[in-house]
Amino acid sequence: MSPLYRDPAAPVAARVADLLARMTLREKVGQLNQRMYGWDAYRRRPDGEFELTEALHEETDRFEGLGALYGLLRADAWSGVDHSTGPDARTGPALAHLVQRHVLERSRLGVPALFVEEVPHGLMALDATVLPVNLAVGATWDPELYERAASHAAAELRARGGHLALVSALDIARDPRWGRTEECFGEDPHLAARLTEALVRGMQGDVEERGYFASDKAPVVLKHFAGQGATVGGRNSAESELGPRELHEIHLPAARAGVRAGAAAVMAAYNEVDGMPCAANGPLLNGLLRGNANGDRGWGFRGLVMADGLAVDRLARITGDKVSAGALALNSGIDLSLWDEGFTHLAEAVERGLVTESVVDAAVSRVLTLKFRLGLFERPYATPELPPSSAETGRALSTALARSSITLLHNKAGALPIDPARFTRLAVIGPHAATTAHGLGDYTAPQRPGTGTTVLAALNQLAPPGTEIRHAQGCSLTGGDLSGIPEAVATAAASDLAVLVLGGSSARTPDTEFDANGAARTLVPEMTCGEGVDLAGLRLGPAQHALLDAVTATGTPTVVVLIQGRPHAAPEAAERAAALLTAWYPGPWGGEAIAEILLGHTAPTGRLPISVPRSAAQLPVYYNHKDTEYGSYADEDAEPLYSFGHGLTYTTFEYGVPNIGRNGASCEVEVSNTGERAGRSVVQLYIRPLRTTVWPRTLELRAFRSVDLAPGERGTVTFPLGEERLAQVGPDLERMPLPGSVEIRVAESARGALDAVPVVLDIKG
Amino acid sequence: MSPLYRDPAAPVAARVADLLARMTLREKVGQLNQRMYGWDAYRRRPDGEFELTEALHEETDRFEGLGALYGLLRADAWSGVDHSTGPDARTGPALAHLVQRHVLERSRLGVPALFVEEVPHGLMALDATVLPVNLAVGATWDPELYERAASHAAAELRARGGHLALVSALDIARDPRWGRTEECFGEDPHLAARLTEALVRGMQGDVEERGYFASDKAPVVLKHFAGQGATVGGRNSAESELGPRELHEIHLPAARAGVRAGAAAVMAAYNEVDGMPCAANGPLLNGLLRGNANGDRGWGFRGLVMADGLAVDRLARITGDKVSAGALALNSGIDLSLWDEGFTHLAEAVERGLVTESVVDAAVSRVLTLKFRLGLFERPYATPELPPSSAETGRALSTALARSSITLLHNKAGALPIDPARFTRLAVIGPHAATTAHGLGDYTAPQRPGTGTTVLAALNQLAPPGTEIRHAQGCSLTGGDLSGIPEAVATAAASDLAVLVLGGSSARTPDTEFDANGAARTLVPEMTCGEGVDLAGLRLGPAQHALLDAVTATGTPTVVVLIQGRPHAAPEAAERAAALLTAWYPGPWGGEAIAEILLGHTAPTGRLPISVPRSAAQLPVYYNHKDTEYGSYADEDAEPLYSFGHGLTYTTFEYGVPNIGRNGASCEVEVSNTGERAGRSVVQLYIRPLRTTVWPRTLELRAFRSVDLAPGERGTVTFPLGEERLAQVGPDLERMPLPGSVEIRVAESARGALDAVPVVLDIKG
Repeated sequence: MSPLYRDPAAPVAARVADLLARMTLREKVGQLNQRMYGWDAYRRRPDGEFELTEALHEETDRFEGLGALYGLLRADAWSGVDHSTGPDARTGPALAHLVQRHVLERSRLGVPALFVEEVPHGLMALDATVLPVNLAVGATWDPELYERAASHAAAELRARGGHLALVSALDIARDPRWGRTEECFGEDPHLAARLTEALVRGMQGDVEERGYFASDKAPVVLKHFAGQGATVGGRNSAESELGPRELHEIHLPAARAGVRAGAAAVMAAYNEVDGMPCAANGPLLNGLLRGNANGDRGWGFRGLVMADGLAVDRLARITGDKVSAGALALNSGIDLSLWDEGFTHLAEAVERGLVTESVVDAAVSRVLTLKFRLGLFERPYATPELPPSSAETGRALSTALARSSITLLHNKAGALPIDPARFTRLAVIGPHAATTAHGLGDYTAPQRPGTGTTVLAALNQLAPPGTEIRHAQGCSLTGGDLSGIPEAVATAAASDLAVLVLGGSSARTPDTEFDANGAARTLVPEMTCGEGVDLAGLRLGPAQHALLDAVTATGTPTVVVLIQGRPHAAPEAAERAAALLTAWYPGPWGGEAIAEILLGHTAPTGRLPISVPRSAAQLPVYYNHKDTEYGSYADEDAEPLYSFGHGLTYTTFEYGVPNIGRNGASCEVEVSNTGERAGRSVVQLYIRPLRTTVWPRTLELRAFRSVDLAPGERGTVTFPLGEERLAQVGPDLERMPLPGSVEIRVAESARGALDAVPVVLDIKG
Repeated sequence: MSPLYRDPAAPVAARVADLLARMTLREKVGQLNQRMYGWDAYRRRPDGEFELTEALHEETDRFEGLGALYGLLRADAWSGVDHSTGPDARTGPALAHLVQRHVLERSRLGVPALFVEEVPHGLMALDATVLPVNLAVGATWDPELYERAASHAAAELRARGGHLALVSALDIARDPRWGRTEECFGEDPHLAARLTEALVRGMQGDVEERGYFASDKAPVVLKHFAGQGATVGGRNSAESELGPRELHEIHLPAARAGVRAGAAAVMAAYNEVDGMPCAANGPLLNGLLRGNANGDRGWGFRGLVMADGLAVDRLARITGDKVSAGALALNSGIDLSLWDEGFTHLAEAVERGLVTESVVDAAVSRVLTLKFRLGLFERPYATPELPPSSAETGRALSTALARSSITLLHNKAGALPIDPARFTRLAVIGPHAATTAHGLGDYTAPQRPGTGTTVLAALNQLAPPGTEIRHAQGCSLTGGDLSGIPEAVATAAASDLAVLVLGGSSARTPDTEFDANGAARTLVPEMTCGEGVDLAGLRLGPAQHALLDAVTATGTPTVVVLIQGRPHAAPEAAERAAALLTAWYPGPWGGEAIAEILLGHTAPTGRLPISVPRSAAQLPVYYNHKDTEYGSYADEDAEPLYSFGHGLTYTTFEYGVPNIGRNGASCEVEVSNTGERAGRSVVQLYIRPLRTTVWPRTLELRAFRSVDLAPGERGTVTFPLGEERLAQVGPDLERMPLPGSVEIRVAESARGALDAVPVVLDIKG
């Protein structure tokens, strides 16, 4: 008779318990390890077929199986994998099959491996769909669209044989110096929470009642838990000094929302929070995340907690050795390690009494649960094929996100959309103008030549007949080489309008050196952003500033488009450009989306998910600071250059006075398109508590809704309110209703909310 | 028979209880109020005598007495008091007498008033001794010298009829953008703690066994409790996001040391810490400060807690009205308010049930206790006269502090001390060269013409015969007026050496506008620092940078002296100057001390109490960050330009390998003067814990000792160690011994400690 754990009709918990009882300690420890880089598990033979490496054999021998394998499909400058050596859409499933079959053959009990892949903005594998980075997703303020894109990414992952998706979602961008700002949904906890929910829904879909995932859905590992967006100085994986209330109010809501939405797993962050490293933070992982305390003190999470890469071994700094580091992490709530040595010695840790086998069992149960929920015991190889139209669908979703994220920051004298009667000669200039290579974001796999659309190509394609388009690069993203500027100036001077495409880059090249965790260590030219690349000054490269000066000095009206992974501090662009847009990293088809907006084929709809600073000296500039009525620095304004929530359209909107429904359960606002073009208003509801138990923030975003209106059209937007939506983190960190009256302010940006007519909602405590 | 409270032989507690029992609620509430600005209590008649104002009469009528009076002796741009209108050394005691007599006459029970004065760097009254600011005191690393200066300031205060000294001591300078950085002893908790102890010892002296202060000693109000040095963005009284461990490790040790040394009072800070305003922070005030929990969880403080100016009324932002704001503050541990309306309504708060009379009684007891301890019931007027030599003593102490604080940051090719054979023609240039007005620090009273010594005057006086000294101002501190630069360039070009005296200023003028709490609101020319004047960019005024460029471009070797209340970011000075010194705000006689050091009459002994940043973009730069091995920003080094603890001398020192005594109770280091001049080495002992329960800092200063050595001389410095000195803040915020081994590193600066040979001390847990 087949053992219970083999019975797909049995409840998952029973299957887990049955299997666990049959396992040796050595086998159990194997389940908690995710040691190898996936690209070390295979090599490509001269005939083009994959074969398994000795390294994989050694790993599966060591623990008689394999818990999880990281990055089997990954291809990038760090892994060194490219189209000549790695698995693509066609060969990926076969490679996954090969590895899985080997694991199953080595495993006495037939426990399949988990294949864990990076999916920060689409699946980071060869020929998979690259989406705009999270910061661009934040700028869409469109969870529904993002949900569809996430769903597509999950289907691509599963179709390749991958299982578990690593996705940045929880980091809140509080310091744009941080190179991973691009991986954040922005500075606001509410916006990040709504997008995190969309991510979980999109990737995981409707989970069966028994807890099984559909075969085209992928359990998500939400990264990173917690507080990594607020490390000191914006320094990657440095300390965070945050107090628990700051953590609860700003850095935990996205995680809480993701857990409530059913996220399968969470990754503990590198950083420590007020002295406690997240990978050794029992109160955070076992207490808050997994606990079942009253109210909001424990979230009752039952999923998996993975450590970030080598974060367990780093704990040896305080424990003295890696064995005790592994024990500390496991005791603190880490289930699955990533590349660490520490977790390989857990059997020794049990023998030394540093950890009990019951703690090992609990972690193994969570790994096995995920494998059962994925159906891997029934279908270890089966991967649903994608429909032939899948690539086209991916491109459409990526382009739609790009289109929705591009944000018009200013538009003096209506320079945009480009009036073909006024502007027939266009100069397209700048280091981002004729390439997509620097607009893809960190982690991205090598692209096949011809993938994507540059701004130049898209303008050539979409501009009305008769438009003359000239191009000059002008300069590189970094460095001070000014030799290309005269040509750019001549090009601009000979044109009616210059489109100047500037910004930063997270592109890695084969020359990049990496830390053992994949963060860039030494910088190659043109790399200004991404993991390991923090900026102090937030400036564009010196030649870009010179190019901006020179091109605008020609007197030709200049539209500046910034392609970037963080808001750079370039107030000159705001001053000198006729119009200024930010496209963040818009992905391969960003050029198309940008051209459409420049030409007015579509109206800009993006809104800033992060405040744009005037300079690094005035940091921080997030809108939701405490209500301390700070005036100004003596030498500089303390307010940002552009506010959170800001973004212009090609029309104008007027909002009526908010109308609070009975019992304060909802709020209605009438919105009118008072301009002459269609457009989308992203209606933002902020609160300003008047009575509180703790010191309040000036404003807090608590709801938003988009409405598309034709010229002259009027619509009503309804926001649900109510106690839960107006809850605050109380004195003892519990969620509690506001103790008294609160102002409701509905506006087009946080800055606008300061001037909006407030409506006071009285809350009877 | 006289009531018990009148009996000076009775214990203070019995006298307080007896008096309290006789008081009405109205009288009690009066004791908790410190409503008036002292300068509104009097006016000067045409005949030069003082008379009391109607405002004072109204105030004493209102509560049938007066709890405390702020700033009766204060004179500055805010109060508008100067030598023509205010009390000086001669007339101050008579004015205090006049007010006190009135209070006693109005008080049914004869309760005298407390006169509370600002003593941030000496008594801030006309003709009192101005000391260098706290940041300069921090640079002396000399608690013993500071103790003597503090003692002198207390004697001046009491001789004028003042009682209670408000002194900044607790704020730790973590962000030099903050305009009050000058009021901090620096960035390090250990250094601040030792200087806070010296302050309390110096001002309060040996308190009698019965608790009475000597008549020339003054109880201290330690400012500010807590975390005000780490507000977001260095913004004055903005929020602090600190977690409790960061607070305990960095921001509380000075307060803890001050309380242990017997400080009579503490001022609650403006800021909130992680959502809890300090004036409404029961856990901080009633819990930590006053509590008697085990170990280090409660400090058992029995003294007075005063609110900062208008901080109680600010609580109406969250309570809805000032009555409940007052109740919240009182319930949270505030005893005495400052200028607030909230505390005037405490009787109503009792009636409304917002606070119980027993809480009122406890606060009143603490106010009365202080009045009894000062002997005010016995000697309400008696003020010991200062000896005739007092002014000279004050000047000597102020000059000694200035001399000890001036710090030589670099000295290329031995430009200093000035060799009279090489440099006979000196150019003395810069906006600080020929004035003392901008080197006195915030809060300072107007000075009589001729007070103090400028750098120019001191060089003229002290330079060897035959030295030619030329002067040009060059430019102003602020603004971009370059018209004086040609003259400065000509002066430098005609000289062998240029002394360029640059920096900032906290000088207020009659044109300054102030907030109700005395913080500068609108800025007048040349004001770049002090309360309410925060800088984003940390740069000197643009003309100063132009002057620096122009003078150094002449090729004349240039010594730059920075007179400043914060470290400015001026890496050009480091690059271009032959030598660079910082004198902070050295007080009136700073010019003399600077000239002595330039000429080699004395050797520099100052050491940086705060890291000097390269730019505001790389903040924070304090040395005692967590041990995260952060490399660098892509565009800038993350390390400071000059390290905490750094300071050159005119000689060189060598340290032997530290020798840990038996049981780790002490550490000995041999120090040799290996140069050719006498000098002082400030020997700094840092620890680097290897085994910890929480994530450790890279380095922590735990002891320092100065040793003066002649050329070739050798000395031994002994540091006590032991469990208490090596204690850390444990997981639950308790002080606990380190759980394992720790490196001891002895060096001349924090940067030096990174390269020092560590000695490992094994701690058996």
